[in-house]
Amino acid sequence: MDLSKRQQQIIAIVKEAGPITGEQIAERLNLTRATLRPDLAILTMVGFLDARPRVGYFYTGKTGSEIITEKLMKYKVDTFQSMPIVVKEDDSAYDAISAMFLSDVGTLFAVDQDSNLVGVVSRKDLLRASIGNQVLQEIPVHIIMTRMPNVAVCYPDELLVEAANRLIEKQIDSLPVIERSSEAGAKVVGRITKTTITKAFVELARNELM
Amino acid sequence: MDLSKRQQQIIAIVKEAGPITGEQIAERLNLTRATLRPDLAILTMVGFLDARPRVGYFYTGKTGSEIITEKLMKYKVDTFQSMPIVVKEDDSAYDAISAMFLSDVGTLFAVDQDSNLVGVVSRKDLLRASIGNQVLQEIPVHIIMTRMPNVAVCYPDELLVEAANRLIEKQIDSLPVIERSSEAGAKVVGRITKTTITKAFVELARNELM
Repeated sequence: MDLSKRQQQIIAIVKEAGPITGEQIAERLNLTRATLRPDLAILTMVGFLDARPRVGYFYTGKTGSEIITEKLMKYKVDTFQSMPIVVKEDDSAYDAISAMFLSDVGTLFAVDQDSNLVGVVSRKDLLRASIGNQVLQEIPVHIIMTRMPNVAVCYPDELLVEAANRLIEKQIDSLPVIERSSEAGAKVVGRITKTTITKAFVELARNELM
Repeated sequence: MDLSKRQQQIIAIVKEAGPITGEQIAERLNLTRATLRPDLAILTMVGFLDARPRVGYFYTGKTGSEIITEKLMKYKVDTFQSMPIVVKEDDSAYDAISAMFLSDVGTLFAVDQDSNLVGVVSRKDLLRASIGNQVLQEIPVHIIMTRMPNVAVCYPDELLVEAANRLIEKQIDSLPVIERSSEAGAKVVGRITKTTITKAFVELARNELM
């Protein structure tokens, strides 16, 4: 968003002297209040300034692009998550590879007898196992998986952006979405992957999200 | 962005009757031109309306979120691409897996003697090969790779959003970035992956991109 020179002057004045009334801003610029009205209206509407009755205008500290940030801050994990694909921790690496191809996912969530999350197994883990000397049919998933509590997870009510950030920081492709209320163990209710984020990015550009 | 009732009325009038002058809009709303000025200024600045001298206001068809789209339309592939990781097409699947672990990438670009792109090999291709009955050291990459021209690629001057969309549509994790000027063969100059897009998404939210 391109601001006019006058709008930039107004922001500078409010930044320095706010809270300040419209009259006072006009005075400083040698203009009438009426002349300034459209500029003040724009700056307030877009969010650079805020106005309080009987106090005046003050600077919000927001930049134009923070409007975008504010939109992104409304997206929660649960509106974007996909179905989780699980394997039992005692299944073999070979079974895990088959499950991966069948569901066309890059990461499987390993669960115990009670369907609680115990670990995560990725294509990378399986590829590492496959170049070892053991027979894939004889290696159980729990031997090669990343085990709880070392598994990065996310929650349904978290921001999508937080989940995206975790994927980058932990250098992983997928996060299990875990019920917050799980008392006995972690119940997996979904998955957030780099595919989820890439889709959200495309939809954002296409205006499908707002 | 929340529009006031009056601003919505103005948009409706311009949509129906544009191009239309400010005077005419004011007349229809039983208001003075001066009263309308701030609203018209806002609607024009944010991009809902456009104005041409001696013609009047007309409706651009843009929505508030199209401002975001416009920002995203400035991001080009070459500002976001990472280094490409390549293997020779005659290397073994075992070598490819080693290269993948060494560089920590999910996709390798296969090149011929002249360093031209001939194919792409993914973790999935290698995993599939590893559960076959052959010895990984004896399978050359060109047997298991996706071969040109079936490889989805992108170009440095394309929009990041187009590349993101291609990743989703083709259901792949990575795109080689190809020089447009390559006459003899395709020269790989970078890679765009779902990680690239996820990083861009996070930076977008953090205001680091604009």
